[in-house]
Amino acid sequence: MSSPPSRLQNLLGHLRRQQPPPPPPDAHHISHLSPTFFLERAAAIEPAAEAVVHVTANGRVLRRSYMELADRARGLAYYLRKRGYTRVGILAPNTPAFLESVYGIVAAGGVIVPVNYRLKEEDVGYILEFAEVECVVVDKEFEGLLEGFRRRKSGVEIIVDLDTDATEGALCGPFDEAVLEGLTHDRETGGKGWADLVSQTVANEDDTIAIPFTSGTTSKPKGVVYTHRGAYLASLANIVESGLNLPDARCKYLWTLPMFHAVGWTFPWSVCAVRGTHVCLRKIDYPLIWKLLKEEGITHFNAAPTVNTLLCAHKDAEVLPRPVRVTVAASPPTAHLFEQMTGLNLLPVHVYGLTETYGPITRGYMLPEWDNLPKHEKYANMARQGHGFLTSLPVRIIKPEQPEGVLIDVAKDGKEIGEIVFSGNICCKEYYKDPEATRKLFAGGVLHSGDLAVWHPDGSIQIQDRAKDIIISGGENISSVALESMLVEHPDILEAGVVAVPDSHWGERPKAYMTVKEGKEGQIRGQDVIDWAKHQSAISKFMVPREVEIVRELPKTSTGKIKKNVLREWAKKGTPAEFVVGGE
Amino acid sequence: MSSPPSRLQNLLGHLRRQQPPPPPPDAHHISHLSPTFFLERAAAIEPAAEAVVHVTANGRVLRRSYMELADRARGLAYYLRKRGYTRVGILAPNTPAFLESVYGIVAAGGVIVPVNYRLKEEDVGYILEFAEVECVVVDKEFEGLLEGFRRRKSGVEIIVDLDTDATEGALCGPFDEAVLEGLTHDRETGGKGWADLVSQTVANEDDTIAIPFTSGTTSKPKGVVYTHRGAYLASLANIVESGLNLPDARCKYLWTLPMFHAVGWTFPWSVCAVRGTHVCLRKIDYPLIWKLLKEEGITHFNAAPTVNTLLCAHKDAEVLPRPVRVTVAASPPTAHLFEQMTGLNLLPVHVYGLTETYGPITRGYMLPEWDNLPKHEKYANMARQGHGFLTSLPVRIIKPEQPEGVLIDVAKDGKEIGEIVFSGNICCKEYYKDPEATRKLFAGGVLHSGDLAVWHPDGSIQIQDRAKDIIISGGENISSVALESMLVEHPDILEAGVVAVPDSHWGERPKAYMTVKEGKEGQIRGQDVIDWAKHQSAISKFMVPREVEIVRELPKTSTGKIKKNVLREWAKKGTPAEFVVGGE
Repeated sequence: MSSPPSRLQNLLGHLRRQQPPPPPPDAHHISHLSPTFFLERAAAIEPAAEAVVHVTANGRVLRRSYMELADRARGLAYYLRKRGYTRVGILAPNTPAFLESVYGIVAAGGVIVPVNYRLKEEDVGYILEFAEVECVVVDKEFEGLLEGFRRRKSGVEIIVDLDTDATEGALCGPFDEAVLEGLTHDRETGGKGWADLVSQTVANEDDTIAIPFTSGTTSKPKGVVYTHRGAYLASLANIVESGLNLPDARCKYLWTLPMFHAVGWTFPWSVCAVRGTHVCLRKIDYPLIWKLLKEEGITHFNAAPTVNTLLCAHKDAEVLPRPVRVTVAASPPTAHLFEQMTGLNLLPVHVYGLTETYGPITRGYMLPEWDNLPKHEKYANMARQGHGFLTSLPVRIIKPEQPEGVLIDVAKDGKEIGEIVFSGNICCKEYYKDPEATRKLFAGGVLHSGDLAVWHPDGSIQIQDRAKDIIISGGENISSVALESMLVEHPDILEAGVVAVPDSHWGERPKAYMTVKEGKEGQIRGQDVIDWAKHQSAISKFMVPREVEIVRELPKTSTGKIKKNVLREWAKKGTPAEFVVGGE
Repeated sequence: MSSPPSRLQNLLGHLRRQQPPPPPPDAHHISHLSPTFFLERAAAIEPAAEAVVHVTANGRVLRRSYMELADRARGLAYYLRKRGYTRVGILAPNTPAFLESVYGIVAAGGVIVPVNYRLKEEDVGYILEFAEVECVVVDKEFEGLLEGFRRRKSGVEIIVDLDTDATEGALCGPFDEAVLEGLTHDRETGGKGWADLVSQTVANEDDTIAIPFTSGTTSKPKGVVYTHRGAYLASLANIVESGLNLPDARCKYLWTLPMFHAVGWTFPWSVCAVRGTHVCLRKIDYPLIWKLLKEEGITHFNAAPTVNTLLCAHKDAEVLPRPVRVTVAASPPTAHLFEQMTGLNLLPVHVYGLTETYGPITRGYMLPEWDNLPKHEKYANMARQGHGFLTSLPVRIIKPEQPEGVLIDVAKDGKEIGEIVFSGNICCKEYYKDPEATRKLFAGGVLHSGDLAVWHPDGSIQIQDRAKDIIISGGENISSVALESMLVEHPDILEAGVVAVPDSHWGERPKAYMTVKEGKEGQIRGQDVIDWAKHQSAISKFMVPREVEIVRELPKTSTGKIKKNVLREWAKKGTPAEFVVGGE
């Protein structure tokens, strides 16, 4: 199943010789932190270890060793450097070419600009122009999204990846050609290999390594500046927190999380640091995921609650023979989901973060004493967002609506709601070319999340809502997240999204949109859920939604969060016909 | 078995309130790295988790939670700060007071000066004076070692720890009183707790955190300057490399390695980072170690090969039901030892380093493909010192006897012998108050180990000898380490130490000193071993020692390395009577 010997392999024999690294820049005992070195190191220690497994666009199973992955990344680096590209976009699903680009671009001294391929053509163009890329690596499937950009910016080189695992013939596309050209260039200029690239150390660890963009549901996407130091420390924390360094097995990490999202939460680096196997995945395909879980020996994956919900509800779901660690984040998960996952041996590692925090920055630590609690309470505790990561400073909750920059902590009573703020090394450096937004983000010297939470006496946090998603009804705050968590406990309900609708008497009242489980379509109405909710002890009377609408599907962002702004639109103008149950 | 409620606990209720940390010093996205925060963080996340288990000097079993450990360290910090101490010595075995001091001294803004209690009184005094300590925490057992120092430096406060787990009455010693006084002081000055100490961040991560001393077998001990950043990155690497973050259990770390040695290889920090349990140990006591391994559920310990050799040979040795990870370093271990350990479910993690590199800086990674090799070859591969740690830069081997500062790599052929040199963040900053020795240590911009090794084609290193221990016989280099590894394969031999003796014809020739296994005393003579060695295929003819002497015991340093300088003395002047087998 492995690749046939190729031009690539023929080149490699000449390139093994390594030069000593340059002396460190500052002092003998300091080298500037950069995670790109993790790949060079993995290939040196265990060249034959399986680095990448992937089903290509043309249906071939590709398996590459760490030596091959490192060689390909190196080839790309020399190609980019030869042309002087220092800002390179990536528009691709979770392919080997994406991984190679994460390493190759930085090794060339450049900056990674990953782009969400689910965005509109206009937004994709906006991001690439705004970030001033000189080159874009694009997967063939998404080439169309570059049309407008290409017309406007004809000087930008577009490198198309066919994702075919071919290094010659018609199936060998521009990306593979670039890799080969770079390897040839290295050989012809002295074969310096990694020693001549940015890998073991970087001039300044505070330099930019990547500019991923926020999803921008309400405004233009913002570029989030990641540094080498930040990416390094975040990726180390992710190793420890997700337990990628298994004591007795190689980590096999399944790429369900999009790599474009916060550079895959720094996992392209974390997985290589422990010489784990990247199991790539072009798209979320539940039967394929279950097949890989059962047959490929997956040990870890990361996914939003929505993906886990659909995974648990899938017909191929089965209790796995060995535990798989699932790092869960994005929107707040429900206790119900954690119970279901645990039952399938999908053991949740609950984290929380933002694009602005390199992905995860808090973890809900499981405490052994919870095993003695009633099941419901145990899983409710697990659903807390927890404490700051090992390499972060502690997270805080501050009173909202203070003058800008004034930070007053809320009480650690599990009741008072405030805004989550972060500090420390897993905070981004700034918004790219947007000093005003940066100033607001760091008002008072901490990173503002815009998320609302309570602070428990033990210092753990629990998200209540996005600031704009809280529902204020008759002077009481209703957390849409808490309400959603409660509603999905109903045996027939799959997912729920709650928004505020205007109410002449109460100011606002909650309205819930829901989808039902497979096989339950048409068997349950909104009023049934309301009647059921009234008899649940976990919920106060004033919180029971007075409107529940069952829909075919909930609108979601590319990263799996429910689009509350779309639900608010529906509440105002009526649910579009294609989402209405019973109407086609 | 836990401590009774005490004055300490009565104080604590008042001190739980925490202040927000000061804003980070440089920029909103950077906080200066310091590992002291790991304790404050552990106590916040899991206050009830077991932090310390210990059998006290008076035979009580002490168990303390993370909240208690953090409180006691905080009390010590306030005590030290009140008096303005910024340089504090520690002279103690592996007690809870040592651990508390590691955290308390740094939290007070001070520097740790750990001292080897196996040194002569004169050397202990030299170190404390040279390091300019203002205070010493000393275990009652070693108070006598301070006599001379105390006379000369009457202004230095000596805080004696009785190691009794008492916080009142006659058994409550000065150390416990200091902790209580510090807690009272914190309460009376506003109860700021950890927020007013050096924990979450430090002014400059390049500042000194500790000055451990080299063992100084041939010259005065040298002070090795550790920084906050270096200790932080080394301790993160040790978590990942030793696998302290077990996926399904709490790490229970047994303190066989002396804490004074390179600040316990940074494990006081690594273990707290994962909220593991420190199982303290006043001395190496094999029956107690086996009891703890069997009954206390130890998951990890660190020890020199000599400790592991005696542990494996002990009558209480038994195959353990669950694997225990044993991080092995100091002198080069033999393949034979690794095989024995593995058989007992003591799975070796083979590391190598110096006091100058915060302890471990390389690891011999086990590769899965070795499972297909003949057993002997597999364990021989495991005995290699391997590759640089995750947070280090790669290790190199350079040609010896070049002009100072000229670095030329040896061939990666597994044959050419050169000197091991290090670079990156796990290198110490300098020798304390010794610019000349510092200049030599970092000649050419890399840290010189003084150890000789070969470089294998895969980039892994394998130690041959200390530079001064290599034997040059008839123009051939004989590695004393390789020879020792071979000799202990003899079924009756326990340990071997080989040194060069002058030879009129060959220049030098090897002489071996050996101890035999329990029950084999008097049953084997030196000549038997020589005859046996001649028929071993693993060894070249010219390497066979022509002199082998069986002795009662081998002279060792406090960290378990065989004292080659003493063996050379014996070779010159004859073996002292008390070591001669048969003579009393």
